[in-house]
Amino acid sequence: MKIGIIGAGSIGLLFAFYLSEHHDVTLYCKRKEQANTIDTEGVKLKMGETVLQRKIRAMCSTKWLVREQLVIVAVKQYAIQSIIHELHKLPSEIPLLFLQNGMGHLDELKTLPQTSILLGTVEHGALRVSDDQVNHTGYGITKLAVYRGIPELAETFVRKLRTKSFPFDPADHFETMMKDKLIVNAVINPLTALLRVRNGQLIANPYYFHLMKIVFAEVADVFELENREREFHRIVSICERTAENYSSMCKDVFEGRKTEIDGIVGYLLQEADRKSISVSVLPFLYNAVKGTE
Amino acid sequence: MKIGIIGAGSIGLLFAFYLSEHHDVTLYCKRKEQANTIDTEGVKLKMGETVLQRKIRAMCSTKWLVREQLVIVAVKQYAIQSIIHELHKLPSEIPLLFLQNGMGHLDELKTLPQTSILLGTVEHGALRVSDDQVNHTGYGITKLAVYRGIPELAETFVRKLRTKSFPFDPADHFETMMKDKLIVNAVINPLTALLRVRNGQLIANPYYFHLMKIVFAEVADVFELENREREFHRIVSICERTAENYSSMCKDVFEGRKTEIDGIVGYLLQEADRKSISVSVLPFLYNAVKGTE
Repeated sequence: MKIGIIGAGSIGLLFAFYLSEHHDVTLYCKRKEQANTIDTEGVKLKMGETVLQRKIRAMCSTKWLVREQLVIVAVKQYAIQSIIHELHKLPSEIPLLFLQNGMGHLDELKTLPQTSILLGTVEHGALRVSDDQVNHTGYGITKLAVYRGIPELAETFVRKLRTKSFPFDPADHFETMMKDKLIVNAVINPLTALLRVRNGQLIANPYYFHLMKIVFAEVADVFELENREREFHRIVSICERTAENYSSMCKDVFEGRKTEIDGIVGYLLQEADRKSISVSVLPFLYNAVKGTE
Repeated sequence: MKIGIIGAGSIGLLFAFYLSEHHDVTLYCKRKEQANTIDTEGVKLKMGETVLQRKIRAMCSTKWLVREQLVIVAVKQYAIQSIIHELHKLPSEIPLLFLQNGMGHLDELKTLPQTSILLGTVEHGALRVSDDQVNHTGYGITKLAVYRGIPELAETFVRKLRTKSFPFDPADHFETMMKDKLIVNAVINPLTALLRVRNGQLIANPYYFHLMKIVFAEVADVFELENREREFHRIVSICERTAENYSSMCKDVFEGRKTEIDGIVGYLLQEADRKSISVSVLPFLYNAVKGTE
């Protein structure tokens, strides 16, 4: 399959590397410099002590996007705005797959002309260490759900994309799938970003664990969660599995980059407002992370 | 006047330096090494580009305390516990002056045998940069109020201690004085410690300014403040005056030391609990700072 991947951050590089094993992948980078480096050097993936390298076509212009059979959008959530006009120009039969965190961008996708749109949640840990190298720090799964199109779409693409080393799973409802991820992101990401700690610290440090409970309580209120204990346990077990990792938001804060706080906590604040649910720690977290940007 | 100062942190060094101009000061240090350094080298004070130096007697043992005409306690609030037994041993006629932040230690002072006890709030900015050097980073005033003893006590010691370069002022009620300081500390210290920024950032960064408002609202609730606008304005003007300074709590976090969070936010949480006032951001701040210790 001819696959185009827009965005060469940690997730873009990770997907480009794995999918290029069986597919013809083109990576669309924002910076010409990065496109040139990858186009000549390929993409390096480090996992444990092993470094693997694959040749991958990379370019800066998006003019070749039209020939793809799947376009994966792997830019940060807040960058969707800056590429949405490119996607509008694509033929309406090209399937799109969006891999952003949060749910703040879903409204923007409504305007797209494409008839097949998938959403994906990525549970891998990945860290871009240079323009052409990504460290695969946590082995996980990618879930796909249909945002627009026939119900079989998710299952079809899961079959086409999945391999043993890079698994995909279909999900029935995109809202449930995105919400599940958002709950985790809303608790782990802003806290680790504010405290500048690894995910594991949230459960190892009793004071931070208490903060997790405080934040979760408000997230659960906003989503009107029913099985709170199970949901909280799910977050705890993700902290356990990814104990040594820094969350993407924490890494963004370390490197002085814009974070995804608007799409994650910003979205929850809008929801709280819409439902007239009172929250106080979420606005605190929002402003604390926003202020570091 | 023979003055003993217990504790050679930033405040202890600052007071030792200024008071030794007109008084016979002995500085009591916890570490023998520091006592030796100061006893031989004196105390250096840096203000702007100027460094001044004064000979000051320093010792590690507190056995000479009995000859003093005033004993100033300049240890951190949480360290009161570890020296309170020494104070119990002092003749009851020796006046004591406590310079701690927060109000969590006031109960402990009740048990002391001394008939004259003063409390002081320090509005200077001071940073200890080595065992024998303190940088005077913000010129301010020290307020004195009577905790126990005749009402004239504050006025008497203000007259004895104040100089042009190191002013003192009497305050009528120790509770009001301590509360005024606590309100400022409760807003500025935990926020700057958590965000790791200078005081000025709280007003320069619009998101952090919003956090200040959120925290102040809860502090004002706990203290049932009446003139909220004036109180908030007072905090803002302190941030303006000390814009380039890091708060003491922020410095403690930077250097991995224990902070005064228990005496400041911990005290507010107890008060909130006692008065059944609902707070949510203060417990968050408490646990966030506590977790870094």
